[in-house]
Amino acid sequence: MKDLKKYIRTIPDFPKKGILFRDITPILQNNQLFKEVIEIFKKEIPKDIKKVVAIESRGFILGAAVAYLIGAGFVPIRKSGKLPWKKIKMSYNLEYGTDVIEIHEDAIKKGEKVVLVDDLLATGGTAYASAKLIEKCGGIVRKILFLVELEELSGRDKLKDYDVFSLIKF
Amino acid sequence: MKDLKKYIRTIPDFPKKGILFRDITPILQNNQLFKEVIEIFKKEIPKDIKKVVAIESRGFILGAAVAYLIGAGFVPIRKSGKLPWKKIKMSYNLEYGTDVIEIHEDAIKKGEKVVLVDDLLATGGTAYASAKLIEKCGGIVRKILFLVELEELSGRDKLKDYDVFSLIKF
Repeated sequence: MKDLKKYIRTIPDFPKKGILFRDITPILQNNQLFKEVIEIFKKEIPKDIKKVVAIESRGFILGAAVAYLIGAGFVPIRKSGKLPWKKIKMSYNLEYGTDVIEIHEDAIKKGEKVVLVDDLLATGGTAYASAKLIEKCGGIVRKILFLVELEELSGRDKLKDYDVFSLIKF
Repeated sequence: MKDLKKYIRTIPDFPKKGILFRDITPILQNNQLFKEVIEIFKKEIPKDIKKVVAIESRGFILGAAVAYLIGAGFVPIRKSGKLPWKKIKMSYNLEYGTDVIEIHEDAIKKGEKVVLVDDLLATGGTAYASAKLIEKCGGIVRKILFLVELEELSGRDKLKDYDVFSLIKF
């Protein structure tokens, strides 16, 4: 495996001052690296998974390719107001204020085993709320996968009740 | 092949009054249908494609799985302000006002053959602007693929210079 870390582009002060943004697009646009990441994710996923749930919108990229590869269905979790039809909601705290995420109420069957996928683990707030949302639907979160983990933000502590995997650590 | 059309959920007045929204998530969440769609897309794609370019954000779901399957790199086109780093922009007209989409300036090499993927062809405005954006980068749009086409909106006329494929027509 190539050193994936050196393909992450770091952009200072994006999207706002003081944030070091970790841009994964150089990995995605490289066909060999993209393939490698998806296949590593597959190895981390238990055998009995029926759905891959991914968080808008970079999570969709990794989650959809993984869902195809393991032969699972794909379920999006989106920000408030983006999904049509009947939804289950979960609100969670941000640094300032709150945010709301939603999932379709028919997306996951009771007792269905799923994995959750996103591009980046920072504070873990969105992933934690997503896991709770899946559980509210009756689903079982067997694993949470990230491409990048920002270790100093301790998102893994917030997700301590879950089996968490990340491929690239900063 | 099952009749995919009956798995599209139609929601009246979403996201605003008078719009019949075609919801593709029942196909995505069904592992067999999702697989089938991605494999049909693959059959439509010429052999020499190096990159799959997809439009935020439902386009990411189909585009990423297709990119993995054909062994191509994945390139996102996003709404203004979402991509970090150096970008090329394209503005286009909406019913009221204009919108701007962006691509990374290193995403496509000069002369590279790409396919463009999105979930839905309506008026074709976003897809047309995306194709022009790819060409501005030096890329060659060999095919544009959609899951759903709303024929009465004549998006195909707008894309008449391109090879367009859609799987489900309304």
